Amino acid sequence: MTKKILAALAASAALSSPLAAQIAPEKVAALRDAALKDDLAWDITEGLTTEIGPRQAGSEAEARARDWAVEKLKALGFQNVHIETFDVPWWERGDASAEITAPFPQSLTLAALGNSAATPAKGLSAEVIGFDSMAALEAADPATIKGKIVFVTHRMQPAQDGSPYGPVGQIRRAGPSVASKKGAVAILIRSIGTDHHRVPHTGVQAWTDGAKPIPALALANPDADQLERVLKRGKPVTIALTVTARMAGTRKSGNVIADVPGRDPNAGIVLVGGHLDSWDLGTGAIDDASGVAITTAAAKRIMDAGQPLRTIRVVWFGSEEIGLFGGAAYARAHAKEKHALAAESDFGADRVWRFSTAVKPEALPAMKPIAEALAPLGIVTNRKNGEAGGSDTDDLQRSGVPMVSLNQDGTRYFDLHHTADDTLDKIDPEQLRQNVAAWTTLLAITANDPTEYGPVTPPRE
Amino acid sequence: MTKKILAALAASAALSSPLAAQIAPEKVAALRDAALKDDLAWDITEGLTTEIGPRQAGSEAEARARDWAVEKLKALGFQNVHIETFDVPWWERGDASAEITAPFPQSLTLAALGNSAATPAKGLSAEVIGFDSMAALEAADPATIKGKIVFVTHRMQPAQDGSPYGPVGQIRRAGPSVASKKGAVAILIRSIGTDHHRVPHTGVQAWTDGAKPIPALALANPDADQLERVLKRGKPVTIALTVTARMAGTRKSGNVIADVPGRDPNAGIVLVGGHLDSWDLGTGAIDDASGVAITTAAAKRIMDAGQPLRTIRVVWFGSEEIGLFGGAAYARAHAKEKHALAAESDFGADRVWRFSTAVKPEALPAMKPIAEALAPLGIVTNRKNGEAGGSDTDDLQRSGVPMVSLNQDGTRYFDLHHTADDTLDKIDPEQLRQNVAAWTTLLAITANDPTEYGPVTPPRE
Repeated sequence: MTKKILAALAASAALSSPLAAQIAPEKVAALRDAALKDDLAWDITEGLTTEIGPRQAGSEAEARARDWAVEKLKALGFQNVHIETFDVPWWERGDASAEITAPFPQSLTLAALGNSAATPAKGLSAEVIGFDSMAALEAADPATIKGKIVFVTHRMQPAQDGSPYGPVGQIRRAGPSVASKKGAVAILIRSIGTDHHRVPHTGVQAWTDGAKPIPALALANPDADQLERVLKRGKPVTIALTVTARMAGTRKSGNVIADVPGRDPNAGIVLVGGHLDSWDLGTGAIDDASGVAITTAAAKRIMDAGQPLRTIRVVWFGSEEIGLFGGAAYARAHAKEKHALAAESDFGADRVWRFSTAVKPEALPAMKPIAEALAPLGIVTNRKNGEAGGSDTDDLQRSGVPMVSLNQDGTRYFDLHHTADDTLDKIDPEQLRQNVAAWTTLLAITANDPTEYGPVTPPRE
Repeated sequence: MTKKILAALAASAALSSPLAAQIAPEKVAALRDAALKDDLAWDITEGLTTEIGPRQAGSEAEARARDWAVEKLKALGFQNVHIETFDVPWWERGDASAEITAPFPQSLTLAALGNSAATPAKGLSAEVIGFDSMAALEAADPATIKGKIVFVTHRMQPAQDGSPYGPVGQIRRAGPSVASKKGAVAILIRSIGTDHHRVPHTGVQAWTDGAKPIPALALANPDADQLERVLKRGKPVTIALTVTARMAGTRKSGNVIADVPGRDPNAGIVLVGGHLDSWDLGTGAIDDASGVAITTAAAKRIMDAGQPLRTIRVVWFGSEEIGLFGGAAYARAHAKEKHALAAESDFGADRVWRFSTAVKPEALPAMKPIAEALAPLGIVTNRKNGEAGGSDTDDLQRSGVPMVSLNQDGTRYFDLHHTADDTLDKIDPEQLRQNVAAWTTLLAITANDPTEYGPVTPPRE
């Protein structure tokens, strides 16, 4: 109790600290409005997706992307630009093909999920058993599954906050292990996506202890529709499947780090960023070239406006997609540094619609000027503290670092997420600029306000 | 001149023929409105795309589709249901892969065009030269093209009547021969399509005399965007390409024919239909399962309403996609029969927005009741006679057979046309029903009106 009271007193002291250390609202507004004409975020997104393209975690392309990032960040005038490497497991997609061989022969469009096993070289052929949901698969008698190809076809609906991805995504993350433990020879899931195109959604899945790796793939949504219809005819359905995916040792990945040094080294770091790696099928425009681009463009604007109080650190994380390796490596390497605040952009490039916080309660008054400055961009405030976070900043958050989020409209995010369709043409330059303006606003205030926003324990309410 | 006057007199005689031979407007309206609740067109489209799937011209799947059609048409109660076979050249797609190897290594999504040649087994690699249009390619000095991969990137805009497909589509139809004759080792075109997905648009192209077959492929639109951006960097661009497509002799194709016999064998046939074959990448839902489904469902409704004056013939044409082989075979085999009118549905399944005619001028008054009966469906009338037609009915039209068209809204047709995305989920059941209602209206009137609509020479104004 005493500790909490002391913390509250410290917070109130911070709130009453000289306004001189903060930034004037009219200056924030000017920076925000100028950012609505930003071209840098587009330039970075266009450059990374064009000159590198797909950037699978651990790949040679991801290494080229790191070099590209270092060159770009140095050219923009950031300080302390460097790469911090770490090892990641290497999974090779190889090829995948499937066809219904009975009762209605035709091929299917699908993509292997991360860490999928291969079929035998000549392929495998088995009868299909279908399930409507993860719960149905979990409830099934293993005797009905043994030797079969499992098909799980739960549909995901689009939502502004992307919330269906958590529960429905479990089919991808955990379904393969459940199917394997029940004796399935392979698993096909309906893509975890909201589109209607022949572009399957890949994504990582992890084998749980004791689950033998099997081929695990996602059907494009129209193909899942088709397999549902074929199964409904009531005749035995056989699929022939050939997959050459494989795990192949360890490779180097890395985070790219760049600073805008602050006036007060003791004021702590405001960390922003996104992830540099992408899935291999698309060019990772919305996931997540736009995230590194938006946050870098905003940091550059604050840098150019004069030295901030706090150091702004931009991190382009590596190997997010395959298991948050970059975020974990960063948290380990920088555990002793004081992080005043962290925020990640990793939900596309559509408009920011909401500002969310996960700060200590005493710091909530210091969030109000941010909310007020964001409002003219059409951004509302999430009234529930504790709902901010980010995948690459997860370990930082667990260690008590306070977080904020600028939530993007995710209604069409899962049309593109982890597919070949995640390409530059899906980004609306005007919406991208609104993002840069929001992040510029956020940084203008938080990098110049000495308020202690944390620590926050437990990290999530 | 005398002939024309005689024809006019004959037409006016027909117009003043006993109304007893015609159908009452209220009966037409009742048939039209009942068709707005049609389920048969959906049933046929769903069945054909699910139980057969892709139906490439000359393939074993197209043969299965013919058997499926015969069974379905017999079960529906049509008479004289049979298959008329003919030979077609057989082209095998095989595999195709491409990657930019310099300056920015990354793979590209593309599909071979019909009749494309293969690369050498180990692939080919060459520098790329880009052109904005067919005209720019035609104007180019062969010395700049020799040994290179030609890239033509003209964009097509969506239009309600699909009219850009004619001129822009020439890049696909004729571009490969032009590139080959100028010494190109391969040609990549921007997909002839209006979407923004990683689903390339295939389609037929024909080698002109003296053009050596080369690999000819279409890039998905986002990939064409990407290659444009890469070329704009101004560095030499190299692509490695492997294609195993090949011509492989001759196969059987066929038309499926079904009649609703009329009361008066001398009144001529009203021919309606669509094509049964599809490209191999999708399941041919909008191109053209829906076309055979709509026309068949409408003919079934007229059949069930009592024997019409004229015979209604439904034709599910084979091998349209690879060069209108089915239409040509039909016209040859049935040249001696009297066709009172012909009409094809081959432009998707979106709403019919316009009624067009290509009849002899004297028959225009007989088109008026059709236009009036279609108007409640939101269908306007094309005031210019001579603008009806259809790909499979082209040879009939050339021989003087009068035509009408129920023009569908094609604004999004070329988002899907000839891609893997041409699947059942793209069809809106309500719009499909509006199509059936329009065709039912058309058949109710024309199959019961003794007016001579033709012959029409020249076929097009």
